[in-house]
Amino acid sequence: MENIRDRIARLPRPDAAAVDAAAARQAELTKPAGSLGRLEDIVLWLAGWQGKHPPTLARPHVLVFAGNHGVTARGVSAFPADVTAQMVANFEAGGAAINALSRNAGASFAVVPVSLDTPTADFTQAPAMTEAELAAAFEIGARSVPETCDILLLGEMGIGNTTAAAALARALFGGTAADWVGTGTGIDDAGLARKQATVDAAIAYHAGALTDPLEALRRVGGRELAAIAGACLQARHRRIPVLLDGYVSTAAAAALTVLDPSALDHCQIGHASAEPGHRRLLDRLGKRALLDLDMRLGEASGAAVALCVVQAALAAHLGMATFTEAGVAGKSAGD
Amino acid sequence: MENIRDRIARLPRPDAAAVDAAAARQAELTKPAGSLGRLEDIVLWLAGWQGKHPPTLARPHVLVFAGNHGVTARGVSAFPADVTAQMVANFEAGGAAINALSRNAGASFAVVPVSLDTPTADFTQAPAMTEAELAAAFEIGARSVPETCDILLLGEMGIGNTTAAAALARALFGGTAADWVGTGTGIDDAGLARKQATVDAAIAYHAGALTDPLEALRRVGGRELAAIAGACLQARHRRIPVLLDGYVSTAAAAALTVLDPSALDHCQIGHASAEPGHRRLLDRLGKRALLDLDMRLGEASGAAVALCVVQAALAAHLGMATFTEAGVAGKSAGD
Repeated sequence: MENIRDRIARLPRPDAAAVDAAAARQAELTKPAGSLGRLEDIVLWLAGWQGKHPPTLARPHVLVFAGNHGVTARGVSAFPADVTAQMVANFEAGGAAINALSRNAGASFAVVPVSLDTPTADFTQAPAMTEAELAAAFEIGARSVPETCDILLLGEMGIGNTTAAAALARALFGGTAADWVGTGTGIDDAGLARKQATVDAAIAYHAGALTDPLEALRRVGGRELAAIAGACLQARHRRIPVLLDGYVSTAAAAALTVLDPSALDHCQIGHASAEPGHRRLLDRLGKRALLDLDMRLGEASGAAVALCVVQAALAAHLGMATFTEAGVAGKSAGD
Repeated sequence: MENIRDRIARLPRPDAAAVDAAAARQAELTKPAGSLGRLEDIVLWLAGWQGKHPPTLARPHVLVFAGNHGVTARGVSAFPADVTAQMVANFEAGGAAINALSRNAGASFAVVPVSLDTPTADFTQAPAMTEAELAAAFEIGARSVPETCDILLLGEMGIGNTTAAAALARALFGGTAADWVGTGTGIDDAGLARKQATVDAAIAYHAGALTDPLEALRRVGGRELAAIAGACLQARHRRIPVLLDGYVSTAAAAALTVLDPSALDHCQIGHASAEPGHRRLLDRLGKRALLDLDMRLGEASGAAVALCVVQAALAAHLGMATFTEAGVAGKSAGD
């Protein structure tokens, strides 16, 4: 894990010249200053992290990591664990929501199953992963990032993984299990109570061993969560802006911020999940999601819809005329 | 205006069979029930108002109405009134934000200047329009709706028209000028005070004559606002779903709801404007915007970004596999 720490210690920063060039163009476009709101912020963010102006969105890429969770033995999900592998097959066949949404946005797509045949240990009884397993999952994430993409969308699939996300968020940011546990893909009240009790049991079992975020990721996370953190860090080093999807993806990547608060500056959050823990997590990270459409599917589906907003932002930036080109008077000084 | 009232009295209703067909397909798609949130609602809405399943988005059309306002003499805008015509030329040349955003979403676009050479009267001193002028503007809106489009985006351009929107909202829904007046395209504190005083003066001048919503639209609205109301009503009769843009568009269309509370059921609100009056207006209408990106430009720009969300919703609906097709187990009964 020292290798991971070393990479977090050497995070690249945004390119100020590219940001300035984008801002200079925005000031000339035929609209009142700032009137495109977050669309303008998005373009500065793209330019700064890609390190160029104009930024490009020629090759968006969607990565979905899948993992299995021993904690499903606790009855924390509305679906049986077999569904993870079935959904991976559905992703590979192109039939899932993320396939349709990736096609809609013109993004390439890959699903990366991470040792599905070896679920993590039930983390109420043992660490979810060994150190070697964590490092391997992290590296699978890093190696899955294409060299050529200009924006990366990160999502996940794993029956039981909102329980892992809740346990990880609780380990990283404190609070109670109730703060971080929601109904996931649709459990009932009894299931919700089991899920909260499971998170409490995990935190009690690992008490004293969760102060280091990578150790928390190993003990109460999951393989697809570790892969997301690895991919997110790799994208930073390659200067690729990232759209994180929802609760699970954000919780996984949030582990990096405990080591460097700027670690997710190259990330936007695609969608504010219907899971209440996600909003709490966004508050902790000082981030505001691009979309809020009551989605709670995962699979990078929220990020894939948010990509359409990012594309619109760049289209406006590149496609608008300047005041001079259009012969439009700028804002008057007087009123 | 009796013709308008007659059309409002005969509003078509959504097609229940098409809604049922869309819901039946959604129940079979490989995702937990409801997990695509508002994307699922959008598809039911499209199907119901288009009266068919599956709904289509082959021909989105953007309509921007432009008008000039005598009330600009009160110093209520950061821009001179000449900018309206300059921006219309920019729209026609394809250089405005809405042009770039329409191209991005694959939508056709038209700008309709409504008697720009004849600004409305300063409504602190007289009704903005005569009855004949209101009827003409309303009809221009109705006649601008293409027969063939399958979703219609409505927006506006008019220096001074957030003042008209605020006065109209105040006339329709009560409250104080401060409730409905914001900084528009960017006035300062003194401008904001002038704008509030202008709305107060208008409401005082027309006191007792604003209870009828069409009369309110005539007295304190504007030509582009009347055209939006006319286009919105025409779209309803043609079963074309509508994306309203921001504050001005919503205020204009809201006049119809005073005559029939269901009059905007075929409309979604594209974007929650940074203008605080827009949120208040959405509360009154019981509507929630699709996007909230701090935009405050008008021109249908928020609706054009929201169209991307609507397209994504339909892409997921049409492009996903069913549980049977994919061989994925449905939600288990037990947990």
